[in-house]
Amino acid sequence: MLNESACGVYIISVTPFDDRGTLDLDGTDRLIDFYAKTGVDGITILGIMGEAPKLGHDEAIAFTRRVIARAGKLPVVVGVSAPGLASLAALTEAVMDLGAAGVMIAPPGGLKGDAAIVTYFQNCVEAIGDVPFALQDFPQSNGLFIPVSVIERIVATCPTCVMLKHEDWPGLDKITAVRACERAGMRRLSILAGNCGILLPFELARGADGAMTGYAYPEMLVEVCRLMAAGRRGEAHDLFDAHLPLVRYEQQPGAGLAVRKYVLWRRGALASDAQRKPGPRVSRETAAEIDFMMERLDRATAPRAVRAAS
Amino acid sequence: MLNESACGVYIISVTPFDDRGTLDLDGTDRLIDFYAKTGVDGITILGIMGEAPKLGHDEAIAFTRRVIARAGKLPVVVGVSAPGLASLAALTEAVMDLGAAGVMIAPPGGLKGDAAIVTYFQNCVEAIGDVPFALQDFPQSNGLFIPVSVIERIVATCPTCVMLKHEDWPGLDKITAVRACERAGMRRLSILAGNCGILLPFELARGADGAMTGYAYPEMLVEVCRLMAAGRRGEAHDLFDAHLPLVRYEQQPGAGLAVRKYVLWRRGALASDAQRKPGPRVSRETAAEIDFMMERLDRATAPRAVRAAS
Amino acid sequence: MLNESACGVYIISVTPFDDRGTLDLDGTDRLIDFYAKTGVDGITILGIMGEAPKLGHDEAIAFTRRVIARAGKLPVVVGVSAPGLASLAALTEAVMDLGAAGVMIAPPGGLKGDAAIVTYFQNCVEAIGDVPFALQDFPQSNGLFIPVSVIERIVATCPTCVMLKHEDWPGLDKITAVRACERAGMRRLSILAGNCGILLPFELARGADGAMTGYAYPEMLVEVCRLMAAGRRGEAHDLFDAHLPLVRYEQQPGAGLAVRKYVLWRRGALASDAQRKPGPRVSRETAAEIDFMMERLDRATAPRAVRAAS
Amino acid sequence: MLNESACGVYIISVTPFDDRGTLDLDGTDRLIDFYAKTGVDGITILGIMGEAPKLGHDEAIAFTRRVIARAGKLPVVVGVSAPGLASLAALTEAVMDLGAAGVMIAPPGGLKGDAAIVTYFQNCVEAIGDVPFALQDFPQSNGLFIPVSVIERIVATCPTCVMLKHEDWPGLDKITAVRACERAGMRRLSILAGNCGILLPFELARGADGAMTGYAYPEMLVEVCRLMAAGRRGEAHDLFDAHLPLVRYEQQPGAGLAVRKYVLWRRGALASDAQRKPGPRVSRETAAEIDFMMERLDRATAPRAVRAAS
Repeated sequence: MLNESACGVYIISVTPFDDRGTLDLDGTDRLIDFYAKTGVDGITILGIMGEAPKLGHDEAIAFTRRVIARAGKLPVVVGVSAPGLASLAALTEAVMDLGAAGVMIAPPGGLKGDAAIVTYFQNCVEAIGDVPFALQDFPQSNGLFIPVSVIERIVATCPTCVMLKHEDWPGLDKITAVRACERAGMRRLSILAGNCGILLPFELARGADGAMTGYAYPEMLVEVCRLMAAGRRGEAHDLFDAHLPLVRYEQQPGAGLAVRKYVLWRRGALASDAQRKPGPRVSRETAAEIDFMMERLDRATAPRAVRAAS
Repeated sequence: MLNESACGVYIISVTPFDDRGTLDLDGTDRLIDFYAKTGVDGITILGIMGEAPKLGHDEAIAFTRRVIARAGKLPVVVGVSAPGLASLAALTEAVMDLGAAGVMIAPPGGLKGDAAIVTYFQNCVEAIGDVPFALQDFPQSNGLFIPVSVIERIVATCPTCVMLKHEDWPGLDKITAVRACERAGMRRLSILAGNCGILLPFELARGADGAMTGYAYPEMLVEVCRLMAAGRRGEAHDLFDAHLPLVRYEQQPGAGLAVRKYVLWRRGALASDAQRKPGPRVSRETAAEIDFMMERLDRATAPRAVRAAS
Repeated sequence: MLNESACGVYIISVTPFDDRGTLDLDGTDRLIDFYAKTGVDGITILGIMGEAPKLGHDEAIAFTRRVIARAGKLPVVVGVSAPGLASLAALTEAVMDLGAAGVMIAPPGGLKGDAAIVTYFQNCVEAIGDVPFALQDFPQSNGLFIPVSVIERIVATCPTCVMLKHEDWPGLDKITAVRACERAGMRRLSILAGNCGILLPFELARGADGAMTGYAYPEMLVEVCRLMAAGRRGEAHDLFDAHLPLVRYEQQPGAGLAVRKYVLWRRGALASDAQRKPGPRVSRETAAEIDFMMERLDRATAPRAVRAAS
Repeated sequence: MLNESACGVYIISVTPFDDRGTLDLDGTDRLIDFYAKTGVDGITILGIMGEAPKLGHDEAIAFTRRVIARAGKLPVVVGVSAPGLASLAALTEAVMDLGAAGVMIAPPGGLKGDAAIVTYFQNCVEAIGDVPFALQDFPQSNGLFIPVSVIERIVATCPTCVMLKHEDWPGLDKITAVRACERAGMRRLSILAGNCGILLPFELARGADGAMTGYAYPEMLVEVCRLMAAGRRGEAHDLFDAHLPLVRYEQQPGAGLAVRKYVLWRRGALASDAQRKPGPRVSRETAAEIDFMMERLDRATAPRAVRAAS
C-alpha cells in the first residue's frame, strides 16, 4: 500500500490505443514490461497524460486490471479524479479491489478560497474511506493554486493523504517550504515530482523523494534519482542535462503527450503513437525534430556508457 | 425524437436525493408527476442543475430509466456532457436505448479558437451517430464563448444538431442574429431559452421557441409561452414580472439549485431539498427570504386567478 | 472623509462621452446635478461601469476635478484600481488632493491563495498611506473569490479599510457572515451593496448600510434604503419589484452599461448614450425593449405618486 | 522604423530599480551598454518582463527617453499594451516622439471569439495611426488563443502589423503554418520568438527571423541566430543546449524575472536584482542553484572559447 515512505520513480504510464482509437490491452503488457525493465519503482496510470477522461468506466477498469496483473510486485497508483465524488469513489473502490496500491486525486478547478480546497479533500476521504492517496498539486492543469498552508491543513485532517504529487511551477521553494513544515511538526509526506521532471535534480536536492512523471526514457529518471541519493550531484546533472533538450520538448503543454507517445513508439514500447480523439499526432516536422534530438541524445550518452564500461 | 420544431417548455428536472445523499427513485415519480401536471412539453434531465456530474454511470442510467418510464408521452432529453467522447457516447447510447428523445451537449471549457468548437461538435456527431442533440451555449458555466458564426458552421456540418439551448448572457441580440442567419439560408434550429428564464418574455419575442430551464413554478413558464404565442404580450410580462423576484433569487450562480430545491420541497414536489455533496442547503436566512417571496407571489397571482375565475 | 459609518446611496456615476468618444466635461455637470437631485448620499466615479480603464491619466484627473467641483458637499469616492501600485498610488494622491473622500480598490485577478489577497491590500496601504478605502469584492469581474476570513484579516491589518463594496454573487450569506464577525470582535465596516442592486432590499435586511451601484433611477435606490431603514419592508419590496424588470435588464454582464447609459439619456441626464470604444450601443431591438420597460415602470409607479400626493 | 524584415535578436530589456523600488535611470545606461556589447540587433522595453504595469506613465516616458538616448543606432521597440485604447495611444504617441522604432501590443484577455481579436487590433490601428507594431501572441499571459486564421485576418486588415512576437506554446507548428500562409499569398511578417527562447533553434528552423526575449546571456541568442543563418545547425544546438539548463530555469512562470535579474546582477549588468513590489527576489536556495548552473555553463562554454581562440 502506498505510504509516506514511497520514493524513486513512479512512472506515469501512457495508455496504448491502436490507430482507430481502440484500447490496446495486448500492447499494455508490452508497455508495462518496457517500464519495468527501466528500473522504475512503481507505475501510475489514468493520470492526465494517461488520457483518463477519454476512457469509459469499463475501459478504465479493464486497463487497470491488465496493468496490475502485469506489473507484478510493482505498486500501481491509479488516478481517480472525477467531476463528482460518486464516480471518484466508485473508481477507487474498483481499482483497490483489483490490487492498486493507492489512488491519486487532483481537486477540480473552481474551488473558491483556501478552505474549499481543504473541505474538498475531506469530502474525498469521507467518500473513499481508508484508501491512501496522493494529492496532485497541478495548477497548470486546473487553475487551482494550493498554498503550503492548505497542504498543512489537508495533512492534519486527512490521515490517508500520504503523498504530494508536486507539479506546481515554479515549485522548488514550495518543496523546501513543505519540508520545513515537517521539521516544524507536520506529519511526513512522500513528495514525488511531476511536471515532466523539468527540474528534477533540483527538486530532489530540495527534498523530493523521487519522480512521478512519464518521460519516455524512464531509465534516466531512475539513474538521476540514484545518483542524487548517492551524493553524486554533478553526474546527476550531467546525465539529466543530456536529456534536457528532449525533456524540454516533451514538456510543451498540450503537445507533450504526442511527443511522448512518438518517442515510446520509436523505442518499441508502443505499437502505435495514436492518441484517442481528440488528440493530435506529431506533425512531420515535429517527428523530424524528435528524431534529431534522439540521435543527439544517443551520441551524448553513448561515450559515457563506453567510458563507464572501460 | 427531438427535432427543430420543438417548442414550449422543456423543464430542467432536478435530481431527488434523500438527506443522506442517496438517489431517490421513488421520489422521482412524484417529481415527474409534478412537472407533468404543470403542462410542460418535455423534460430535460442530467443537466448541470440536475447534479449530473455527481452521479455515477449506473445511477445516471437508473434515474433516466425511471424518468422515461414515468414521463409517458413527454419527450425526455438527457444531458450527456462528459470530459471525454467515450463516456459521452456510452451514455448517449444507453439513454437512447431507454427511450430518450435526444441528448444535450455542452462543449468542454478550454477549446482554443472558433474552429476547435466546430471540430468538437463534429467529433461528437462521429461518436453518437444520428442521435439528435441540443447544443448548450452556456459560457457562464464553461467559460467558452460561441460566436453566431460558429453556430452557423456547426449547423452546416452537423445535421443532427437540431436545437440551441440558449444561455449566453447577455444573449437577446444573439437570438436575433441566429434567426437572421436562418432567413439568410441557415437550416432552422429550435431555440429554447435557459439561464433561469431571467429574460424569457423578451427571448420569446426575439425568436426563441420556448424555455428549457428549471424554475420551480413551471406553470408560469408554460403560461408565459402560451400568452406570448397568443400575442398577449402585456399579460405575459405581467405574469412573468410577478414571478421575477423569485426568478432573480433562483438565478444566483452556484446558490440557485439550493433555492430551487427548497421551493420544490415547499411545493411538495420533493421529499427533501438535499443536494448530494458537495452542495449546500439554504441557510436559515435564505429560507426565510424565499418564504417571504413565495407569500408575496401568492398574493400577487391570487387576485389574477380570482378575476379570471369571475 | 470616507469612514465606517458611510450609509445610504453612493451612486456609481457613468462617464459622459460625446458621439466621437471625447470626454464630455460640460455634460458632467448636468449628470452630477441629475444624481444630486435624486437624493443620493455620495458619488463614486471611475469604477468599472465608469469606463475607467478607457481614460488616460490626465482625463481621469480632469473628470475627477469636475465632479468634485460640482458635487458640492456630496462625498466623492474614486476608483483607483490599476495593474500596478505606482499608478494606483499616483492616482490616489492626485484625487485626494482634489478633494476626494476616499478611494475604491479591487484586487487584480491572478492573486494566488488567500494570503496573497491580504498581502496585496497591505501593499496598497503602504502605497497610499492613510487614505481611507473601500475594498471592492467583485469576483464576477476579476475571478477572485475573497473569503470572509480574508476580509477579516484585511480589516485587522489595514486600519484604513473602512468599507466593503459588496458585489460577490451570491452574497447575501456573506453579508450576514461579515456582520457576525463584527459581533465577534472585528472592527466595523460600512457595507454598500453593488452588483446593480439586484438583491438590494434583502442586502439591507442582512446588514448592508446602503448601495453603491449605478441604476439609472437612483431615486428608487434612495427610497428603498429609506423605507427599509424605517422598517417598512413591504413597501420597500413593492417599490423595488416595480423596478426589478429594468434592474434585471441592466444587470446583464457586459451589456449593462449600454443599457444604463441609454436610460440616462432617455431621462435627460446624458447628452449621448455613447461609450468610448470598445463598447457597443444598444441595438434597435434592445432600445425598444428598454422603452417598453420604462413605460411599464411609469405606469406602475405613477399611481403610487398620485396616491402619495393626494 | 520597425518593418517586416526585422531579424536577429531584439533583447527584452529588464527595467532597473534600486533596492527601494526606485527607477534607476543611471543604471539604465549601464544595462543598455551591456546589451549593446552582446551584439543584439534591437531592444524591446516595457514588456511584461520589463515590469511595465508597475511604472507610472511619467516613469515609462523617462525610462524610454533614457534607453533611446543610450541605444544609439539600435532600434527600440516599446510595449504599449494597456487596459484601454486611450492609454495605449497616448503612450504610443509619446514614445514615437522620443524616437522609438515601433510598438508592441498584446490583446487584453477576455476578448470573446476570433472576430473580437481582429476587431481589437483594428481599433488599435485606428488609435495609433501609421505606427508599425508587433502583435504579441502570448496566451500563457492573457489566456487568449489566437488562431493562425486570425493572424491572417489581422495582417490583411492592419497594414501596420509588421511583426509577430511569437510566444504561443506549443508553437512550432504555428510558425510553420504562418509561413505557409505567406506562401499562399499573405503579406510577410517578421517573426521573432519569445517565451524565453526555450525552443529557439527549432523556431529559427521553422521560419522565425530571430528572437525577442530577455535571456540574461544575450550573446548566446545572437550566436545561435548567426549559426543557424549560416546553416551550422549542429553547432547552434550545441551552444544552445549548453545554456538550456539556465534557460529552462529562467522560463519558470512568475519566477523567471527574479532569476533573470539575479543573473544580470551577477554579470554586472545591474546594480541590484530588485523588482519593484510586488515581485520577490530569489530565495537563498534559488541563488545557490543559479550559481551552480552559471559555473557549469562557464565550464561547458570555456573550452569552446579556447578552441575557437587557438
